[in-house]
Amino acid sequence: MKNSALSTLGWRTTEPPISWLMHAALSRPKLISLAAGFTDNASLPVAEARAALNQVLRSPKTGQPALQYGSTAGDPALRQLTAAYLRKLDFQVSSSFSSSPLVLEIKSRTRTKDEDDKTYSPERLLITSGSQQLLYLTTEALCDEGDIVLVEDPTYFVYLSILQSRGLRARAVRLERDGLDLAHMECVLQSLKRSGELRRVKMIYLVSYFQNPTGVTTRFEKKAAALKLLKKFERDAGHPIYLLEDAAYRELRFETVAAACDRRASDETPNIRRSQTAATSYGEKSALAADGAADRVIYAGTFTKPFATGARVGYGILPEPVFTAVKHIKGNHDFGTASLLQQLFIRVLSSGIYERQVARLQKRYAHKARVMKLAIKKHFPSAVEWWEPEGGLYFWARLPKQVSTGIKSKVFSTALKNDVLYVPGEICYADDPARRKPNREMRISFGNASEEDIREGIKRLGAVLKKYF
Amino acid sequence: MKNSALSTLGWRTTEPPISWLMHAALSRPKLISLAAGFTDNASLPVAEARAALNQVLRSPKTGQPALQYGSTAGDPALRQLTAAYLRKLDFQVSSSFSSSPLVLEIKSRTRTKDEDDKTYSPERLLITSGSQQLLYLTTEALCDEGDIVLVEDPTYFVYLSILQSRGLRARAVRLERDGLDLAHMECVLQSLKRSGELRRVKMIYLVSYFQNPTGVTTRFEKKAAALKLLKKFERDAGHPIYLLEDAAYRELRFETVAAACDRRASDETPNIRRSQTAATSYGEKSALAADGAADRVIYAGTFTKPFATGARVGYGILPEPVFTAVKHIKGNHDFGTASLLQQLFIRVLSSGIYERQVARLQKRYAHKARVMKLAIKKHFPSAVEWWEPEGGLYFWARLPKQVSTGIKSKVFSTALKNDVLYVPGEICYADDPARRKPNREMRISFGNASEEDIREGIKRLGAVLKKYF
Repeated sequence: MKNSALSTLGWRTTEPPISWLMHAALSRPKLISLAAGFTDNASLPVAEARAALNQVLRSPKTGQPALQYGSTAGDPALRQLTAAYLRKLDFQVSSSFSSSPLVLEIKSRTRTKDEDDKTYSPERLLITSGSQQLLYLTTEALCDEGDIVLVEDPTYFVYLSILQSRGLRARAVRLERDGLDLAHMECVLQSLKRSGELRRVKMIYLVSYFQNPTGVTTRFEKKAAALKLLKKFERDAGHPIYLLEDAAYRELRFETVAAACDRRASDETPNIRRSQTAATSYGEKSALAADGAADRVIYAGTFTKPFATGARVGYGILPEPVFTAVKHIKGNHDFGTASLLQQLFIRVLSSGIYERQVARLQKRYAHKARVMKLAIKKHFPSAVEWWEPEGGLYFWARLPKQVSTGIKSKVFSTALKNDVLYVPGEICYADDPARRKPNREMRISFGNASEEDIREGIKRLGAVLKKYF
Repeated sequence: MKNSALSTLGWRTTEPPISWLMHAALSRPKLISLAAGFTDNASLPVAEARAALNQVLRSPKTGQPALQYGSTAGDPALRQLTAAYLRKLDFQVSSSFSSSPLVLEIKSRTRTKDEDDKTYSPERLLITSGSQQLLYLTTEALCDEGDIVLVEDPTYFVYLSILQSRGLRARAVRLERDGLDLAHMECVLQSLKRSGELRRVKMIYLVSYFQNPTGVTTRFEKKAAALKLLKKFERDAGHPIYLLEDAAYRELRFETVAAACDRRASDETPNIRRSQTAATSYGEKSALAADGAADRVIYAGTFTKPFATGARVGYGILPEPVFTAVKHIKGNHDFGTASLLQQLFIRVLSSGIYERQVARLQKRYAHKARVMKLAIKKHFPSAVEWWEPEGGLYFWARLPKQVSTGIKSKVFSTALKNDVLYVPGEICYADDPARRKPNREMRISFGNASEEDIREGIKRLGAVLKKYF
């Protein structure tokens, strides 16, 4: 007799690599973790959340909806607010989604208002338990065992866990400093066409803003081009191929609109590099703003990463028939995200608390990133190549050839012995038969560590690296 | 080209029948719904939740853990409180889980303290987004397409949706007034053994307290016997067969311990019927208390149905290797239930707010059930057979032969025309080739309707029924 009745999925779902890292850390009380993707503790809006919840629960009339079941798709008021918020993020390039004097219309608008109304309709918007749940539900709704998802190389490792646990195959698309390598994406699709596997390709998964783990942002033009490219291959695939845009870090950009405006005003002769930076600072438009997006883009966002990760409210915009399938599957998961959390976000969004907190957080992370940058400059050997992010929570560093950073590497074990932890780059790479998995990178997070720990952690890490090259 | 890339699961997950009912209701503003399983609005603990959240968020120190990520399995303090709570529910047969003078030890204890320590260990306890999520995760962890789950006949229809969407097969076990029909359960297992399908049987799903939809409670002795029966067939199955106990309605019993004691004291010559009632009133022990439970029972509970359904915190106790598999799958779903909600329940559980609310709710539902019972007695034709519940939210009524209650029946459409809605019994029956699906029952809920609406709704329904027999 087998000693277990687990399903294939049950067997296949393994311990996430990050848990293993956390366990390793537990036995070392002096360890500084630059590994966790936790957000900054000190800037969590405790008083703001308390005030908002007091408003929600101030009377039976306002409080009862927060303590009662809601509908599976989410509270209509929150769906409406969220849809309007996304539309403004894309088309009023401003740091705020509430009415603001600063409204810079994107010049290249070619879409009609009707298309926008369709794309950003609250009817297509689903509230979820964090954006993570939307990733899971979407993958359930679209992918059968053996199906293929294109992913960035590297990408968010928990999404790789979802693919692995469900018996799905990932095909990796190279990443450039401004996002997806479109030429490589076309090569990958061509090769899948040649091997007759295009019909198994269901979507491309894109962490488009300040990507986890590299910090890279994919430019809007590249997202629009990727969408066109997918379209080109749909005929051979025999079905739609979706673009799943994971915008979890979108709001965590370092430069606010005001700062970017000041700089632009004083910058008479912007070169290409500068204008690219500025575009990023204003916030790239999401793939939803591209032509043909309404039928092919699935957008996953979250209110909790830029506000309070303990409140777990995410959302998605999805085209039919994916929206309906995902909603029904969510009905089976949990019939809907907790009303209390939804009411909290209705309150913080409509009162302006949310945008003020996001602005505070942007400054806070920008500062912590500067602290980390200075420490890296000071302590890392010059042979280390590192990417400076313009938002998000992570630096990405690449060691010289032949120096591995993996879980079993000398660098990793020496770092642990010296009480500093990073995320080995290798766990962020999909299993793709087309290339060897790179193993000489590291993700270094400034999200949760204090400034002092960032300085000390990077100093320790630098000292370790200096031993090996 | 197909116009969709949905997975088999995506296609198969259909609109839940209850949503269809709700849609039907939307166009009738005067409709009284006795269909929804929503809980009583007026008794939701708005002020209590506000006070508890103010405590949680009173300072950065206490508030930050509530607004930060936690671990996938749940907050250690909540896991500890919950495990202790369950143990007390089973072994101090009292209306409260906090220290109480009324501790009636069950005489038939044969288990050792070590067995109890293992069974009710916080290490085996997982916090989920409502107990619904635990049902989904457990089914993912145990069942491959084509596998078989035994269910009560009838049973909770959302669980049937999960089975259907995942391509699983249900085999129905008859229900008696005191729970599972064990003789029939053995027949079903024998027949699966004969057909060589026993290896596909992964578990039996049991809604053990004030069942949805019938209100029936399965006696502890029956749960223990069912566990033994499963064990007997495991050799032929080739793997463990689990008992998944869904105790979502456990706390919603009408008779409090104090009331039951009073009655027992004044009742010198209890007959069998009375003593059974009393046992139910004290609360049957869960299957966790049975011999051999530690390795085979999966217990699903919820704090939110007896407190505030908008706060969505459930929990499960699971044996290995199911616990670990479910925890990893939950990691992929959402990495853990919202910390804010967990901190809320730590606070209400440890302060006594929770048990006071449960006691209030028991009285409230008992009263509403009495109102419904009197109305049924007054208005229903005598040919209707109905089951009076001792807890939960539902009455179950059976019409004479040849009178259908289904969605397409005359009774249903006439009821809707007369502005009253019930849940047709047929949607609570699994697709099982071994029997015709019964279609002459109705689930009638007093959970959400006001007393006035209960009276008026039952009056309308009675008038409809009188037209047909």
